[in-house]
Amino acid sequence: MFDTNITIVGNVLTAPEWRRTANTGTLVAHFRVASTARRLDRETGQWIDGNSLRVRVNCWRRLAEGVTASIAVGDPVVVTGRLYTRDWTDPDGNPRLTYELEAAAVGHDLTRGRSRFARTKPTPT
Amino acid sequence: MFDTNITIVGNVLTAPEWRRTANTGTLVAHFRVASTARRLDRETGQWIDGNSLRVRVNCWRRLAEGVTASIAVGDPVVVTGRLYTRDWTDPDGNPRLTYELEAAAVGHDLTRGRSRFARTKPTPT
Amino acid sequence: MFDTNITIVGNVLTAPEWRRTANTGTLVAHFRVASTARRLDRETGQWIDGNSLRVRVNCWRRLAEGVTASIAVGDPVVVTGRLYTRDWTDPDGNPRLTYELEAAAVGHDLTRGRSRFARTKPTPT
Amino acid sequence: MFDTNITIVGNVLTAPEWRRTANTGTLVAHFRVASTARRLDRETGQWIDGNSLRVRVNCWRRLAEGVTASIAVGDPVVVTGRLYTRDWTDPDGNPRLTYELEAAAVGHDLTRGRSRFARTKPTPT
Repeated sequence: MFDTNITIVGNVLTAPEWRRTANTGTLVAHFRVASTARRLDRETGQWIDGNSLRVRVNCWRRLAEGVTASIAVGDPVVVTGRLYTRDWTDPDGNPRLTYELEAAAVGHDLTRGRSRFARTKPTPT
Repeated sequence: MFDTNITIVGNVLTAPEWRRTANTGTLVAHFRVASTARRLDRETGQWIDGNSLRVRVNCWRRLAEGVTASIAVGDPVVVTGRLYTRDWTDPDGNPRLTYELEAAAVGHDLTRGRSRFARTKPTPT
Repeated sequence: MFDTNITIVGNVLTAPEWRRTANTGTLVAHFRVASTARRLDRETGQWIDGNSLRVRVNCWRRLAEGVTASIAVGDPVVVTGRLYTRDWTDPDGNPRLTYELEAAAVGHDLTRGRSRFARTKPTPT
Repeated sequence: MFDTNITIVGNVLTAPEWRRTANTGTLVAHFRVASTARRLDRETGQWIDGNSLRVRVNCWRRLAEGVTASIAVGDPVVVTGRLYTRDWTDPDGNPRLTYELEAAAVGHDLTRGRSRFARTKPTPT
């Protein structure tokens, strides 16, 4: 079986938060993103809001650096990566399921503005 | 913004259940699917289990018919469609978030077997 | 960088042809698939044909078996896999570019009919 | 049937070129992008180059503006949109097939650097 890939075009809901993992000191950042589909209403001919999607995005290493340095709440972004579920138990002992997206790439959506990009030199993080 | 498309290659976890909507009598079916990624462990050279994903799949109209008539628990399938979140409130008044996939197409995965297919004539359901 | 994943919902244009590779005797099959988008015309409120996509699909090993045994011209299918380009030179010495899809999974689209599926036992091919 | 969505993480091969359509004066830009997959060689444990993909990307209206103002040759980008084929006839009268991607969103890949983003106000173009 296979990784389940997903691409979201939406807006940043929460500012990136970063930390280093306890064992290896690897940089990891996360933020939340929301997307709302627009669909053409057949009767009125108008575009209306369709379904929406909100999900937590995890970024590792150099992507964590780039995202933390570049992304703010409300920014329009395109995010691509792998979707998976994480099982956990809430304080009352109930089984719970969380969906997370491990990003392979994140960028500002140039449909909505302009970006000035500065490439980083490849250094191990 | 845009629909968020997703394709899952995995196994059917629960048998399709179907009903008709109250207002229009439209046929809708749902089942759960699970996918577990396999990844090559760099140190051992062996394939090991990676992240997994479980999600509810909703099928409408003719796809609901085809799925109900064809799919059973454990079947290997490929599912493609749109992912979205649904907000609801649990009995204790807590806000909860559920992820659902509205399928555009579902098929048995021919990597894992053979299928005999009988096309249905296009009739409104 | 990353594999470029793609999922096509469409119809089989050519019957699967199979062969074994010269070196290792690995089974490989290919066929062509076509998909035509439907879009809602904003002025008339009617669905009309949009862009179309035709591509060669390559299947390896057990998927090649399943596809060869199950798929015929005209069948509605869902195909998911990786898209890549192959460079070659035509008889006149001109550089040419072909797009191919290496399938990870192929299935009959249950929106368009019903399938009876028989799982194969996992044997090395 | 459906639009065929695709997301490419790669590098810009050619600088964006823009023009206005003859009939409506709509802004459209295009550039080429290339992606090369990396895969883990099972025997050596090293990452090696896998398949590559090159494709023309078309951008309309505000995305054409953003891309033309922001993107240069060599930039790492993430591109998402719809893939389709275009039929044409070469000067010798041979039928030819070209693949094009109509982008829904394009962004600089923050895995590879940092971006400063300035949002444009929504004005019709």
